[in-house]
Amino acid sequence: MVAPMDPGVFSASLKAALAKWREQGIRGVWIKLPITLSNLITPAVEEGFWYHHAEETYLMLAYWLPSTTHTLPVNATHRVGIGAFITNDKREVLAVQEKSGVLRGLGVWKFPTGIVEPGEDINVGAVREVKEETGIDAEFVEVLAFRQSHRAFFDKSDLFFVCLLRPLSYDITKQDSEIEACQWMPLEEFAAQPFVQKHELVKYILQVGLAKVDKEYAGFSPISIKSAFTDKLSLFYFNQRDLDRASGSSS
Amino acid sequence: MVAPMDPGVFSASLKAALAKWREQGIRGVWIKLPITLSNLITPAVEEGFWYHHAEETYLMLAYWLPSTTHTLPVNATHRVGIGAFITNDKREVLAVQEKSGVLRGLGVWKFPTGIVEPGEDINVGAVREVKEETGIDAEFVEVLAFRQSHRAFFDKSDLFFVCLLRPLSYDITKQDSEIEACQWMPLEEFAAQPFVQKHELVKYILQVGLAKVDKEYAGFSPISIKSAFTDKLSLFYFNQRDLDRASGSSS
Repeated sequence: MVAPMDPGVFSASLKAALAKWREQGIRGVWIKLPITLSNLITPAVEEGFWYHHAEETYLMLAYWLPSTTHTLPVNATHRVGIGAFITNDKREVLAVQEKSGVLRGLGVWKFPTGIVEPGEDINVGAVREVKEETGIDAEFVEVLAFRQSHRAFFDKSDLFFVCLLRPLSYDITKQDSEIEACQWMPLEEFAAQPFVQKHELVKYILQVGLAKVDKEYAGFSPISIKSAFTDKLSLFYFNQRDLDRASGSSS
Repeated sequence: MVAPMDPGVFSASLKAALAKWREQGIRGVWIKLPITLSNLITPAVEEGFWYHHAEETYLMLAYWLPSTTHTLPVNATHRVGIGAFITNDKREVLAVQEKSGVLRGLGVWKFPTGIVEPGEDINVGAVREVKEETGIDAEFVEVLAFRQSHRAFFDKSDLFFVCLLRPLSYDITKQDSEIEACQWMPLEEFAAQPFVQKHELVKYILQVGLAKVDKEYAGFSPISIKSAFTDKLSLFYFNQRDLDRASGSSS
């Protein structure tokens, strides 16, 4: 709980603080205002602050004291989506029909897709979405490809990762709220859909997936690495097969 | 220029509009308020709106009329960075020392890095950053690897793409504001830095880069694809070498 504050009082203290910070040579100033203090936004804007970013419960304002161009970090620019390519050993691919979106009611079978949640790893998000939409347990294998597109929602961009998953269970329990139908579908039948032929993204995903199933195709698989500065772990995705071969042939 | 509006008037019209929209079965409502109308944020919040996202000059508020969980798109979660791996034919890598950041003043040579701008493609951003920091003209070849990390800035995540570039010019003109020093540096000398040995991310980037230079290593290269719905172009990154081989061997 944040104590309420009078906008006039806030404005006066902000003016005084900015004068002091300017003297001290401070350059960037952040104000994080919880949504319960939205009445203090206008006083901050009147002092020269601009919006940096917002989440559900707060607005972050920024101000750059020098007359130079600011070097503050940019706002987040991308959302991250995943598509799951997952086959069983009968050359069938896990396919869904969605209840909403541009393909609703068209009888089109597509790959399970979804958006990763804030703070979620791509490999974790892919497994979660497949489980939620189809009831299938799966393990993540690798990123087969990705697509970057712009103006995907508002003015923001989208990174869509095509993920190869290996099924650990086969019985489908579809999600009623989002999914109209779900099945293991012969790859050739999936590929024969007119929709797939017209839709370059799906066509390429299928080509890459088929190259993986039938031939040799290496995507990027993740390993956990540690930051030298913070001990924080993150995932590094790379062509592990080629790197293994390169190391093997040099030793 | 947006005409000013009295918060009381705004509040009354918003109340009336929400009642009508509720009757009409409308579910999601957006209000995009320019920063010049920041005095209308509090009335909107009082009606139940929350913050969805903000950019420098506006705040987007959202409201979901039904009592169900909202299905509005999530806010952007990631910023996108690039690191450039770029070598000449003397087995030298383009390396920089930065004026700011955690490595400032430590004499550490690193790869040129940067953040892609809103709406910018990864391959374009990589070429731009190398040109800005070092003066070198280069062409994009492929993404060698990428890293996803969380809580990189505020609560947001980061996707960092390691990009292989081919130099088109060799004379260095360093950027004075951000770059302390810049050189073409023998790969072995770069690799021998204690910093590289301690820093797992850099060590892996170097391994992958060396595998590319000396052995066979396929990253993801982009092709332009068209959306079936909007004719909009986007870039699809995939292991083109393996897909070409797979197609070749089947024809």
